[in-house]
Amino acid sequence: MRSDRLARTRLPKRIALPVFSSDAMSSVAYAPEQIFLALSVAGAGAYVYAGWIGLLVALVMIAVVASYRQNVVAYPNGGGGYQVVSVNYGRSWGLVVASALLVDYILTVAVSISAAAATVGSAVPFVQEHKVFFCVCAIVALAAVNLRGVRSSGRFFAIPTYAFVAGIFVMIGVGLFREFVMGEDLVAASAAYEIAPSEPDLAGAALAFLMLRAFASGCAALTGVEAIANGVPLFRKPQGRNAATTLLIMGVFGVGMFLGMIALAKLTGVQMAENPVTDLVGAGVDYHQKTLVAQLAETVFGGFPLGFVYVTASTGLILVFAANTAFNGFPMLGSILAQDRYLPRQLHTRGDRLAYSNGIVLLAAFALVLVLVFQGDETRLIQLYIVGVFASFVLAQSGMIRHWSRLLRTERDPSARRRMRRSQSINGFGLLMTAAVLVIVVVAKFSHGAWISIAVMAILYVLMRAIQRHYAAVSAELEPPSGKPPLPPRNHVVVLVSRVHKPMIRALSYAKATRPDTITALTVNVDDGDTRALQVEWERRKIPIPLTIVDSPYREITRPIVDYVTTLKRSSPRDLVTVFIPEYVVGHWWENLLHNQSALRIKSRLRFERGVLITSVPWQLESSETLDLDRWDDRLAGR
Amino acid sequence: MRSDRLARTRLPKRIALPVFSSDAMSSVAYAPEQIFLALSVAGAGAYVYAGWIGLLVALVMIAVVASYRQNVVAYPNGGGGYQVVSVNYGRSWGLVVASALLVDYILTVAVSISAAAATVGSAVPFVQEHKVFFCVCAIVALAAVNLRGVRSSGRFFAIPTYAFVAGIFVMIGVGLFREFVMGEDLVAASAAYEIAPSEPDLAGAALAFLMLRAFASGCAALTGVEAIANGVPLFRKPQGRNAATTLLIMGVFGVGMFLGMIALAKLTGVQMAENPVTDLVGAGVDYHQKTLVAQLAETVFGGFPLGFVYVTASTGLILVFAANTAFNGFPMLGSILAQDRYLPRQLHTRGDRLAYSNGIVLLAAFALVLVLVFQGDETRLIQLYIVGVFASFVLAQSGMIRHWSRLLRTERDPSARRRMRRSQSINGFGLLMTAAVLVIVVVAKFSHGAWISIAVMAILYVLMRAIQRHYAAVSAELEPPSGKPPLPPRNHVVVLVSRVHKPMIRALSYAKATRPDTITALTVNVDDGDTRALQVEWERRKIPIPLTIVDSPYREITRPIVDYVTTLKRSSPRDLVTVFIPEYVVGHWWENLLHNQSALRIKSRLRFERGVLITSVPWQLESSETLDLDRWDDRLAGR
Repeated sequence: MRSDRLARTRLPKRIALPVFSSDAMSSVAYAPEQIFLALSVAGAGAYVYAGWIGLLVALVMIAVVASYRQNVVAYPNGGGGYQVVSVNYGRSWGLVVASALLVDYILTVAVSISAAAATVGSAVPFVQEHKVFFCVCAIVALAAVNLRGVRSSGRFFAIPTYAFVAGIFVMIGVGLFREFVMGEDLVAASAAYEIAPSEPDLAGAALAFLMLRAFASGCAALTGVEAIANGVPLFRKPQGRNAATTLLIMGVFGVGMFLGMIALAKLTGVQMAENPVTDLVGAGVDYHQKTLVAQLAETVFGGFPLGFVYVTASTGLILVFAANTAFNGFPMLGSILAQDRYLPRQLHTRGDRLAYSNGIVLLAAFALVLVLVFQGDETRLIQLYIVGVFASFVLAQSGMIRHWSRLLRTERDPSARRRMRRSQSINGFGLLMTAAVLVIVVVAKFSHGAWISIAVMAILYVLMRAIQRHYAAVSAELEPPSGKPPLPPRNHVVVLVSRVHKPMIRALSYAKATRPDTITALTVNVDDGDTRALQVEWERRKIPIPLTIVDSPYREITRPIVDYVTTLKRSSPRDLVTVFIPEYVVGHWWENLLHNQSALRIKSRLRFERGVLITSVPWQLESSETLDLDRWDDRLAGR
Repeated sequence: MRSDRLARTRLPKRIALPVFSSDAMSSVAYAPEQIFLALSVAGAGAYVYAGWIGLLVALVMIAVVASYRQNVVAYPNGGGGYQVVSVNYGRSWGLVVASALLVDYILTVAVSISAAAATVGSAVPFVQEHKVFFCVCAIVALAAVNLRGVRSSGRFFAIPTYAFVAGIFVMIGVGLFREFVMGEDLVAASAAYEIAPSEPDLAGAALAFLMLRAFASGCAALTGVEAIANGVPLFRKPQGRNAATTLLIMGVFGVGMFLGMIALAKLTGVQMAENPVTDLVGAGVDYHQKTLVAQLAETVFGGFPLGFVYVTASTGLILVFAANTAFNGFPMLGSILAQDRYLPRQLHTRGDRLAYSNGIVLLAAFALVLVLVFQGDETRLIQLYIVGVFASFVLAQSGMIRHWSRLLRTERDPSARRRMRRSQSINGFGLLMTAAVLVIVVVAKFSHGAWISIAVMAILYVLMRAIQRHYAAVSAELEPPSGKPPLPPRNHVVVLVSRVHKPMIRALSYAKATRPDTITALTVNVDDGDTRALQVEWERRKIPIPLTIVDSPYREITRPIVDYVTTLKRSSPRDLVTVFIPEYVVGHWWENLLHNQSALRIKSRLRFERGVLITSVPWQLESSETLDLDRWDDRLAGR
């Protein structure tokens, strides 16, 4: 498993940066264009605000990075929101963060893959035309790769992240160089079109609200910052310091790319609309709107197509890698929550590793649903995304403030106190900023989709509490009393018989070998002819155990057996009844369709009777020998 | 179950006719229009052949009805194709008929429901616009009604069938009256349009081929004739004679309606095209082509809308009832085939009645696939339909010829011999006609969809043979040798332990009650801390059985247990090993998601080890007491 392997190899900063920040960095690929798309509702005139909104987003980004630098230093064993909040505010608030993070992971996959499809589709029209299909394939492929447990080293992650960062910075650099040094006038192809605003005369409060929406959309650039905080234990020592430095580098890169792209977009006059076919005058019905990154690359590297291909390819690649980080994080968080009994045990990795697979399959399934429902439209998906991210930011920051307060209560050293106060005020500033953004996001995006995230988070929260309550109740119910349990005085064995064949003969002989107090061969008469034939064969073979026949006027099998067993139990309630059921074991899954249906139903029904043991007597058919049990074991173990 | 009830109440002819002929009669609702649609490819000029083609189809209809009258007299216990052919040509040919009939039943549902949607859609545009949705709902509703086992009497069936027949004949009568007696000139609304032939200059062989296709399409009118032959045992005595008379009435009605509708269509100048939007000049893009029945009713009852509503409603209703007959026939045939071991035992009704439900669900699922794939287009579905129908006709008729030959070999009475010879020649004529149609259908429709039916029939045939071979092989493998089986000398019990709770304590006490030779409490160490806690608790409670701990370096659960058991088996191969597995029994299905996963996996894996018994020790959680077991038993029994 990758997690084991990573645990053994502590990562230097230059590897940790790409491993943990591909998610955060990749956000830059779709965040700037969301600002322009949101503003386009009021027409291209509203683009004048894009720069200011970008600066505001950058300010929030700086605040968040600064805050999380405090987290990682304070919690070198993993500064993720769930732990920080659970420790400082208790389980309930921790669970709120966990709900938000689970939703975030799912959206990370859906948004990143949709954005990757849009990016690749800007270069390859075929992908654009079959976007949903491409998204579905990508998610299935990612799940498959993660299920197979392909081990990828940190170095493998480093390539696309650095390639992306380098590509974007080169693009920004070349663009600014050509514009200001060479004095060229870079004009994007879409600058030729004019945006027909769907709400042309916005002013006052309505305009302010639109700008808030654009700002909230731009804050998509902050998604993924948490990943480094979660990864602190995997850094080289001193872990906290190294993680803090890495966060700083990530912040600088992120802010630089983000602002650079907005500047470039404004310089080249890129025009983008939410519904380009109707709202871009002059574009025509066949116009496929490319992503902002693609349009910038096309404009900057005009005449040098390799540049365009490089930027779109590396952007698509880092987006896929960003989705992949969720395939690591989701099962890990699921496992922690399952260990705390908030999620089903199947998600807890401590036992068989299958648990990890369950998490991967769950994540992929949810992401597929999102992609299918929203038809791989990242603009609509982003409306759902940011609320969860900022909810966990806000809670993590308030958790940190309480953390410092607690430490300050006992700390006497003035210089340490000063450092703590400084950290606390940084976290306070972060809390202020993220809380403001959270309010803005909820208000501005609620009807656009944020309500879905909030509803899902609430459902998850309630569900996880209910699961925890259930496990606790069962645990209390199962607490054994002291003292010895009563030993059933006698054991009555009932062997189910349908016809005379090897499995039945074996079941009878095994039943006898357990030396029960009484033994009964029981058959249900659903067809008089068959039952007579069974009796004749029974006598002919001189089977020494008498055959008991129960009638079934309604041609049922299960009920007469259950009735027989309950009658037996009633006549001697303290005794044990063991029902022996002969079963076939087959080598191919489809053979199960042809056998054992009655046995399964009888077993599932008998389980409800107290004091009744159900013993399967497997008969291995020849076909079962063809099965490669070792490979099956491996599969069971999730390998 | 309806079949039981019908078996108890022998049906008089006036009830048997509607019960068994709704399928055959309803074919008239779509067969005539298929002739016009097929001819329209060559333009309205080709419509001149419609009358002749109609007469030819009527001739085939008479031949088939006459032939089946011989069947029902000869086989009063059920003259269905599968029995007749199995008896006279052996199992293999019987299986060919069975494959054809299974495909037919599925197509009966798909075609009838699609035609019903088209008919109702002619009156209610909303249904037309959401045709596939309507079809899916109708199939699901039919399946639900049949799963609930709603008992409907024969009288209930009588209403729509007689209503339909009466409506069509009144329509034909009023139409002819207005045209010839009143001297009015009835003109259909669609007569105003002109058909743009997609292949305008057809002549010679190509034209002949087109006419063959039209003829083959018209033969859809014959689908459903078999139903009476299958229902002979349910007629009043003398069964054969009554069934033969009923067949005759059905034939007269069918031919009358069929030819009357074609005549009316030609008189009123109805124009129909396969793609009305492109091929009907003057119709416009919004034109919704109504069914032939609807167009005729509209024209004939112009100015009296109730007549139009009555005809379309009764046509829609009889088509739904026709689909319903398949929901009776398919599970019955499936049960017979399962009894002969050609299909999985779950489809055989002798045991629990659940089998019937399985057949209903299967039929509905296949029909849904067809409706979704072909988007509820009955014209395309009919291409698949007729080949199976005529394949079973041909085989049934050749079976009858051999039947008479066999009887003639021993019969000496000259008048009886004469009757037999006459019957044989009628069957011979029927064979000739149906064989000719079969060849025409296969040739003319192969590439239009008949290949799909043929392929599915072939797959079903191979599959059923394989299933039969599998059951035979298993049966042979399980044939017990004579002589007593060896009795395992000793019984070693292994109780699986995860933690100290009531189910485990109970499992230990029950295991002791079976008085094994040795007993082991086995736990797998996947987490050192947990295992130490278990050991401490074990000692504290002074549990008298020593705890055996096996290590699991890869944190697996199943494999170490299997390894332990196989080692135990290897050291004493003749002994028995019984593994006791404590399990929770819960009251809600979702609770199963939270429990018992490891137990399930361990059990499924241990079944492959020879000489190992698997004993479930159920622990009924309190929630399991809320379950209404009686209702559950009812559901298991399919009630």
